[in-house]
Amino acid sequence: MDNFMQAAIEQARLGMAEGGIPIGSVLVHEGKIIGAGHNRRVQQGSAILHGEMDALEQAGRLPASVYRESVLYTTLSPCSMCSGAILLYGIPKVIIGENKTFMGEEALLRSRGVNLEVLQDPTCINLMDEFITRNPELWNEDIGE
Amino acid sequence: MDNFMQAAIEQARLGMAEGGIPIGSVLVHEGKIIGAGHNRRVQQGSAILHGEMDALEQAGRLPASVYRESVLYTTLSPCSMCSGAILLYGIPKVIIGENKTFMGEEALLRSRGVNLEVLQDPTCINLMDEFITRNPELWNEDIGE
Repeated sequence: MDNFMQAAIEQARLGMAEGGIPIGSVLVHEGKIIGAGHNRRVQQGSAILHGEMDALEQAGRLPASVYRESVLYTTLSPCSMCSGAILLYGIPKVIIGENKTFMGEEALLRSRGVNLEVLQDPTCINLMDEFITRNPELWNEDIGE
Repeated sequence: MDNFMQAAIEQARLGMAEGGIPIGSVLVHEGKIIGAGHNRRVQQGSAILHGEMDALEQAGRLPASVYRESVLYTTLSPCSMCSGAILLYGIPKVIIGENKTFMGEEALLRSRGVNLEVLQDPTCINLMDEFITRNPELWNEDIGE
């Protein structure tokens, strides 16, 4: 497995160990992780810290030129909010762990020229499958349903 | 002027007084403000706390049923990220102070059934006009340009 997706999975597991929703993400620039994050809805009572948003926040303030040469790795297909952040910052490529348990705004991203790669990684799928089975209400809250 | 847009403008001014980008937002449910926020890029070194995102974060974790009966007020047309958050949570109505200085994802929001009202309020326009003239690089950073 790609080391960066592995790092995103480690973030997801870290979130799970904290009692949170197991979704992780890393932002990679010039072959280095510049931001790593995970969903913090439970841990921080946050409505906006999805995994991808947390990775962007941990990366801090960056000029557009950095985002435009970066790749975002996420264990789960990005929702509308995270996809919007990808579009805002012009991140050209997103590597997605899986979209079997949740299909995000992949069609919108592709229509705007974002290069997506979906791995359908069994580890990512299992993390979410088990979480959703155990915590359906929390999951629905996270995706606004 | 609508009291809620006035509250959003007060948030924008508060942000400006802190040395930040003057964009404010409030989330209104059943006639009451349940979240008020402003852009915190400068103040917190944040890449994700736009005014609307901050208002959602200040409102805290909410069930989908609350968002779906809420109205979001924002002094400026919402960018891709903030529009994505509006779509994620199914907020049905957004009142926008102005879209002269920046046009956000209004077409996308309308195409998904979100009801938008654009006030073209002179106070909102002046706040952004003056800010962008004084801080073009900071503004470009905030919109990923």
